[in-house]
Amino acid sequence: MTDRAKIIDRLKKEDTFYLISHMLPDGDSIGSLLAMGEGLRIIGKKVTLFTPGHIPRKYSFLKGAELVKHEVAIDDPEITILVLDSSDPDRLGIFKEAVMNSKNVINIDHHVTNQRFGTLNLVDSSAAATGEIVYNILEELQVPINESIAESLYVAISTDTGSFKYENTSPNTHRVIAALLENGINPGSISHMIFDERPLSFYMLLKEALSSLEMYEGRSLAVMTLSKDIKERSGATSDDLEGIVNYTRNIEGIELGILFYVDGDREVKVGFRSKVLDVSVLAGRLNGGGHIRAAGARMEGDFETVKGKVIAEACKMLKELPV
Amino acid sequence: MTDRAKIIDRLKKEDTFYLISHMLPDGDSIGSLLAMGEGLRIIGKKVTLFTPGHIPRKYSFLKGAELVKHEVAIDDPEITILVLDSSDPDRLGIFKEAVMNSKNVINIDHHVTNQRFGTLNLVDSSAAATGEIVYNILEELQVPINESIAESLYVAISTDTGSFKYENTSPNTHRVIAALLENGINPGSISHMIFDERPLSFYMLLKEALSSLEMYEGRSLAVMTLSKDIKERSGATSDDLEGIVNYTRNIEGIELGILFYVDGDREVKVGFRSKVLDVSVLAGRLNGGGHIRAAGARMEGDFETVKGKVIAEACKMLKELPV
Repeated sequence: MTDRAKIIDRLKKEDTFYLISHMLPDGDSIGSLLAMGEGLRIIGKKVTLFTPGHIPRKYSFLKGAELVKHEVAIDDPEITILVLDSSDPDRLGIFKEAVMNSKNVINIDHHVTNQRFGTLNLVDSSAAATGEIVYNILEELQVPINESIAESLYVAISTDTGSFKYENTSPNTHRVIAALLENGINPGSISHMIFDERPLSFYMLLKEALSSLEMYEGRSLAVMTLSKDIKERSGATSDDLEGIVNYTRNIEGIELGILFYVDGDREVKVGFRSKVLDVSVLAGRLNGGGHIRAAGARMEGDFETVKGKVIAEACKMLKELPV
Repeated sequence: MTDRAKIIDRLKKEDTFYLISHMLPDGDSIGSLLAMGEGLRIIGKKVTLFTPGHIPRKYSFLKGAELVKHEVAIDDPEITILVLDSSDPDRLGIFKEAVMNSKNVINIDHHVTNQRFGTLNLVDSSAAATGEIVYNILEELQVPINESIAESLYVAISTDTGSFKYENTSPNTHRVIAALLENGINPGSISHMIFDERPLSFYMLLKEALSSLEMYEGRSLAVMTLSKDIKERSGATSDDLEGIVNYTRNIEGIELGILFYVDGDREVKVGFRSKVLDVSVLAGRLNGGGHIRAAGARMEGDFETVKGKVIAEACKMLKELPV
């Protein structure tokens, strides 16, 4: 019996589950959590949902989002814990210990780097989002997909694929979405909320970032800078900051984009984005880390020194590029 | 026999076709034109492709784009003309007359406003894009969908749905895309090129637009302005301008967005965008026109006078909103 079959079996047989997704919740972790929770409830299970950290405002419209617990301890060690979309127990924050100590952990995820920390593990890295796996499980459990489950899964899958624009989007991704749209959900209003609409503070950051634009290495390197007091001046959140760094790689001809954010007197956050380079290598050389096309580092020192060091390292990397 | 069946029949029986799509070519018109052209060629037809106006650079990677004719007259009045994605013969520019004089016009489109000017008309307003209709026709003609046809249709459908974000996106849209992705095309690199990547000149416009932001009516109305010389200063094109106006409605809480572009000493272009209002009504009151959520007007007068008039009309409309 595969782990997958055993998981389906457990979901059918047991009555009570704790569901947990990762810290700094994103659309896939929230959407998968809510959809799985509601699906299991529909077939008569008792479920409690947890997530370490607050749910971003743009996902708060999802049904059940207000019931997800953030700061309550998991108390019953006998109850099976279902962990969703978390490659690593470290991403579970205050719930990490309970998960590590439990002998009943079901780990469902799509990250290729998943550490298979569960008692049972269903890791499918061909899925564009954990939401895609959750859809298949709910189908197998014969849960009727209602409007709110469809909405949660739509959010899960569309956010992890950048509205189906990223390479991870497969024919199966689109087939699942086709099935979800049969439930009368409106892709227009959901997508506008989660992708296009941003608070004024975001646009204030964007204006400052664009005004600071510098280009190096024959316009293949774009550098933007946000000053120390921009968060206070604009009322921006970390969410807002997150969106800005992508703009650095969206200029035609740019191979590497860098965003500096002066986060304190001697602390600078640096974000890297590329379409062609492995920026996790660049971030690694500066004691940071991340993914192949999106990485970052947190550096100490005065801004000009840090900036000089980072740009020198970036130019070196661009010159290493095969011509 | 329905027009649809008659069209399939004609496509099977005749040997030679002229294919035309509309002026100011967009992704759907170009993608549908190229896909239909290549599909018909594969089953042995002789086709010539026309489009009034140049193909935007971001679509020039599509196979066959360089062979589309722009300024050549249509000379043989006996050859069947296939018009794609054009609601109205006026949108055919220099080819309008040839189409109006021909007795063999096949009109394939998805615009609800299509004037059914063809000898045979296939107008399906439930299709998100003309590319969706073209896919179904090619399937019915048993044309094998190769990589370049898939790429052209992907561009057609993804651009007319804003990467599947708009309300017009249906379950069928996603099913067609699933089938296209089976042909080994890469949604990541295509989408980046057509959606995310913009020339530096676009970002220079965006910076100026964001710097000019004003809000009225309790922050429900956003107004941005681009000055007369911005096109020259930044090297921006009309394409670039087109993208800016959408930003006006993307600020949280905004119900109506307006972009002013001072286009000459006494000429102002005004763009309207909304998520909730019928801006075609507003544009109509100012002698302009357009769609329900995206409209515009071209006004004469000095900038301050035009601006005052437009904002007064916009505030009036916002006050008419049901509370």
